Amino acid sequence: MTTIPLQPHAVEDAAAVLRGVAHHTPVLTSATLDDRVGGKVFAKAECFQRVGAFKFRGAYHAISRLTPSQRARGVAAYSSGNHAQAVALAAALLDTTATILMPTDAPKLKLAATRGYGATVVTYDRYRQERTTLGDALARDRGLTLIPPFDHWDVMAGQGTVAWELFADVGALDTLVVCVGGGGLISGCATVARAQDHAVRVVGVEPAAGDDVARSLAAGRIVEIPTPRTIADGQQTTAPGEKTFAVMRERVDEMVLVDDSQIVAAMRFAFERLKVVLEPSGASGLAALLSGAVDLADQRVGVVLSGGNVGADRFAALLADHPAADRSRT
Amino acid sequence: MTTIPLQPHAVEDAAAVLRGVAHHTPVLTSATLDDRVGGKVFAKAECFQRVGAFKFRGAYHAISRLTPSQRARGVAAYSSGNHAQAVALAAALLDTTATILMPTDAPKLKLAATRGYGATVVTYDRYRQERTTLGDALARDRGLTLIPPFDHWDVMAGQGTVAWELFADVGALDTLVVCVGGGGLISGCATVARAQDHAVRVVGVEPAAGDDVARSLAAGRIVEIPTPRTIADGQQTTAPGEKTFAVMRERVDEMVLVDDSQIVAAMRFAFERLKVVLEPSGASGLAALLSGAVDLADQRVGVVLSGGNVGADRFAALLADHPAADRSRT
Repeated sequence: MTTIPLQPHAVEDAAAVLRGVAHHTPVLTSATLDDRVGGKVFAKAECFQRVGAFKFRGAYHAISRLTPSQRARGVAAYSSGNHAQAVALAAALLDTTATILMPTDAPKLKLAATRGYGATVVTYDRYRQERTTLGDALARDRGLTLIPPFDHWDVMAGQGTVAWELFADVGALDTLVVCVGGGGLISGCATVARAQDHAVRVVGVEPAAGDDVARSLAAGRIVEIPTPRTIADGQQTTAPGEKTFAVMRERVDEMVLVDDSQIVAAMRFAFERLKVVLEPSGASGLAALLSGAVDLADQRVGVVLSGGNVGADRFAALLADHPAADRSRT
Repeated sequence: MTTIPLQPHAVEDAAAVLRGVAHHTPVLTSATLDDRVGGKVFAKAECFQRVGAFKFRGAYHAISRLTPSQRARGVAAYSSGNHAQAVALAAALLDTTATILMPTDAPKLKLAATRGYGATVVTYDRYRQERTTLGDALARDRGLTLIPPFDHWDVMAGQGTVAWELFADVGALDTLVVCVGGGGLISGCATVARAQDHAVRVVGVEPAAGDDVARSLAAGRIVEIPTPRTIADGQQTTAPGEKTFAVMRERVDEMVLVDDSQIVAAMRFAFERLKVVLEPSGASGLAALLSGAVDLADQRVGVVLSGGNVGADRFAALLADHPAADRSRT
C-alpha cells in the first residue's frame, strides 16, 4: 500500500493557517442528547463557522497555498453550495477572484450568499450535466485554478481542523461520527483521530439514497451511483474521490446510513433541544446518533454538526413533509 | 425619591452565585446584522442558557437566598413558561421542591419541560383567571415560598448578570436593547448599564399589543392593560411590577414597540443568519434593531436574545402566518 500524503502534521499546519481567520467553533452538549444516546456527546457546531459550514476551512487553506501567479489569475469551484460560498469568501479574503459553477436548483440562500461574497456564479443543471467536466473546462478556458470540493490534500487537511479543535477542546473520544459527502471532512478528521493516544472509532454517515462511499468501501473500489435524490444536498455526491477513497479505506472504521425522515428528525431535535439550525447534510451525523444505529453506550462521542445553511421556509417545508413521530413533544 | 434597593453590587454578588451553575452564554456577531443596523452589534445568546432562557439566572439566585426552613417547605411560581422551567430546575439543583402554576395554553414544549425537571404543574385559563391571586393562594395553602417571575429584588439581580457578562466580554456599549415583559431582565441589565464608565442608553422593547410598560413610563404611574394577544408569550404581562416600575422609571431611557410580523422577521433572520433559534419574546430585541426604530448608526450595540424555547412546528406555523417580505432571500 502506498503511503497517503495526508498526515496529521498537515492538519496541524492548516490549523495554524486558519487561526484567527476561521472561527474556533463551540462544542455543544445536552443532557437530553446524552440520555437519548446513552453516552456523553460533544457536538462540534460548524453551523457557526464562517459561511455557515466547515467548508470554509478547506477552501481557505487550499487557496492560501497557491502561488502568487495562481492567485493573480483567480480560482474556480463547482459546488452544491457551501463549498461555493467558502471559496468565494476565502478568495475575497486572500485577494483573488472566484468563479463558481453551481447547480440551478441550489438553495436560493446559497446562490445569493455566494454572489454576496463577490464571486461570479455560472449555473448548470445537475441532473443533466456533469459538473466535473464543466468545472474543468471552465478553469482551463479562463486560466483559473480549480479548488475541488473534497478530492484535494490541502482541502482535506483544512477540513481536518474540525476534529483537531474538537480533540483540543474535549480530550479523548471513543467514537467520532462525521457526515460524508465526497469524503473531504471525514478524511481530514479521521487523520486526526488516528493520531490520538486513545483509540477512536471513526464512523461515517451517508444518506441512504446516496450511499456511494459505503458501497465503495464495501466493494474495495470506487463505485459510482446516479445523482442521489435526498434532501441532504451537501451529500448528493455520486462517488468518492480517488484521494478521499484512499484515506477513508485506511482510516474510517464504519459507515452508517440515515434516511431523509431521520435527518429531519435530527434537524428538529437540534432546533428544539440545542437551539441551533442545521441543514439536512449538517444534521446527518446527529441523525445517526439519534437513530440508534451506532452503539455508543457509555462512550464519549464526538459528532460534527457540519453546517446550518437552510432557509427558514425550506426548514418549515421539510418539517411538514416529515411530521414528528410524537406530536406531543412539540 | 426613595433609593432603589437594587444596586450594581447586588448583580455582582448574583454573578458570583451563578458562576459554574448558569452558563456564561456566548456573544454572537454577524457582519450581515452590522450592515442592516449600521453599527456593531453584540448579541447575548441566552437561548443557550440552561432551560433555554435567561430566566434561570433570576430563579436560581432567588432560591439560593432562601432560608433552610423555606427550602424545606418548597417553592411555588406562576409563569407563562420559561420562569416555570427555571424555578423547576433551580429548585431541583438547590434540593427543594417546586409547584408551578401555568396557563393551559402555554406551549406544550414548556409544559413538558417543566414537568421534566421534576416540578408539579397546576394549570389555569389565562384569559379567565387572574394568576397572581391564584399563585398567592397556592403558596399560602401549601406553605410554599412564591418566587415571582420579575417583581423581586433577587430575581432582578440574577437577570442583571446577563448584562454583567456582556459588558465583561465586549467592553463599552453605546446602546443596550433589552426585551421587556414584566421588566425583571431590563431592571437588572439597566442597573449594570448605569454602573459603566461609558454612558449607555438603555432601550426596552415590548410587543405593540402589550405596551403596558411603555404606557406606564409615559404616564408616570403603573398602567394596567388587558392580557395582550401577541405571539410573544413571554411578554404577555398586563402591568409592570411595583419594584420593576421603580427601577425602569429611573434607569430605562427609551421604550420601542414591535409588532408580531417584525418579531417573526427577526426569528427568521436569527435562523438564517445567526443559525440560532429564538422564541418570539426572545427575538423582540432583535426585531427592534432590524425594524430601524432605534437609531444605532455607528454605535456599539448590545442586544439580548433572551430565549429559544419554541417548538419547530410552532416556528413553521409562525413563518406561514407571516411570510418573508422578500421571498427571493430564502
